[in-house]
Amino acid sequence: MLFFTQCFGAVLDLIHLRFQHYKAKRVFSAAGQLVCVVNPTHSLKYAPTRCAAVQTSVEQGVLPPCHHHEAVHDPQLVPCTCPLFSCPWEGHLEVVVSHLRQTHRINILQGAEIVFLATDMHLPAPTDWIIMHSCLGHQFLLVLRKQEKYEGHPQFFATMMLIGTPTQADNFTYRLELNRNQRRLKWEATPRSVLECVDSVISDGDCLVLNTSLAQLFSDNGSLAIGIAITTSKVHNAEAEM
Amino acid sequence: MLFFTQCFGAVLDLIHLRFQHYKAKRVFSAAGQLVCVVNPTHSLKYAPTRCAAVQTSVEQGVLPPCHHHEAVHDPQLVPCTCPLFSCPWEGHLEVVVSHLRQTHRINILQGAEIVFLATDMHLPAPTDWIIMHSCLGHQFLLVLRKQEKYEGHPQFFATMMLIGTPTQADNFTYRLELNRNQRRLKWEATPRSVLECVDSVISDGDCLVLNTSLAQLFSDNGSLAIGIAITTSKVHNAEAEM
Repeated sequence: MLFFTQCFGAVLDLIHLRFQHYKAKRVFSAAGQLVCVVNPTHSLKYAPTRCAAVQTSVEQGVLPPCHHHEAVHDPQLVPCTCPLFSCPWEGHLEVVVSHLRQTHRINILQGAEIVFLATDMHLPAPTDWIIMHSCLGHQFLLVLRKQEKYEGHPQFFATMMLIGTPTQADNFTYRLELNRNQRRLKWEATPRSVLECVDSVISDGDCLVLNTSLAQLFSDNGSLAIGIAITTSKVHNAEAEM
Repeated sequence: MLFFTQCFGAVLDLIHLRFQHYKAKRVFSAAGQLVCVVNPTHSLKYAPTRCAAVQTSVEQGVLPPCHHHEAVHDPQLVPCTCPLFSCPWEGHLEVVVSHLRQTHRINILQGAEIVFLATDMHLPAPTDWIIMHSCLGHQFLLVLRKQEKYEGHPQFFATMMLIGTPTQADNFTYRLELNRNQRRLKWEATPRSVLECVDSVISDGDCLVLNTSLAQLFSDNGSLAIGIAITTSKVHNAEAEM
């Protein structure tokens, strides 16, 4: 009996998932766009000291030194860039992607344009929704975070980071788009490098910021669909020259 | 001597204004776009009772009754829609525009696309920046408001309202665009009617919302340039059908 109940639950989950996929596809109405359902993870890590160390290193033009074993100072080593976990891992920039996939089970999606469907938006802050996005020969990390910058006033922050250096990041532009109920909100910016800390990007507010009320307007049944597109930033450079 | 000092001040103001025009034009880099410098006005009016009355009337499908002289109940009469002043005026929808121009000196601009340049963004909340926009045979009211929804945490709210009925408003889409420093933020929505209260639109958060940090990122020397475009909403309807 228990077995049948569980099977029935799993089938219901699958139907719900399929329905969410369908809805997100319909909202963005773009043939061939990948829809990725991203479940939330309660944020465990808030370690400002680590961020401060990373930030200082980036500003000084060197890759961040190890912060867990103070004796090691190999500038090629990067601490784990996943903003979710207090992870002792460190490694070269080239193996960050495989670490995030294997250890933290973060999905990676291919394609120039994808739809990120964050579920359970009602969960209390702090909560993160994270995927990796492989595009134009590089890997990007999309972080959606629910956080209370001001007590009792949770907000949603969405940003995209390149798994690469700040110089490489300057070559790209990312776009996040919300589209529902005859309302549309678009944010376009240059991605930051994962060598800069996602916490500092969010505390600076240099990302897509949504109040709870706006997030609810764009949500459908507790899920928020964010269209993501990445381009090379030649257009931006051309505009700057004009 | 005083005369010369004042003249010199006026010339400096003109040069500063010209420079702001030039910068806003360069940012939006669109030939033929009108740039309107909008000075702030400290908000005097916060009368929730009036708004509640208007809101109830709109929901019931009738135009709001007079709230200053309770005896008058002509459903064709609209109280002054200017969100700035506690104004006792009331009149028919057709003469709202001339009232706003003549009594409250609100500028009106022609053109499908204009740039709204709000000055002195640093002024404390509550502050409003307002213009009217004449386009596609109708007049719209653009309101940018700095308000503290949460104490000590001022935010900017921008919305566009049609000086017409809610049914007429449904035929249009407005777009507000911020563009600076390789960042771009776009908000698209159906305008509300001035018969609905601007205060309730802002308290619902159904508009472009900017934190102080984001507003600073998009501001240039204390001024925020907002590109405005209005279209008929056929595109939206086509999308909804897809």
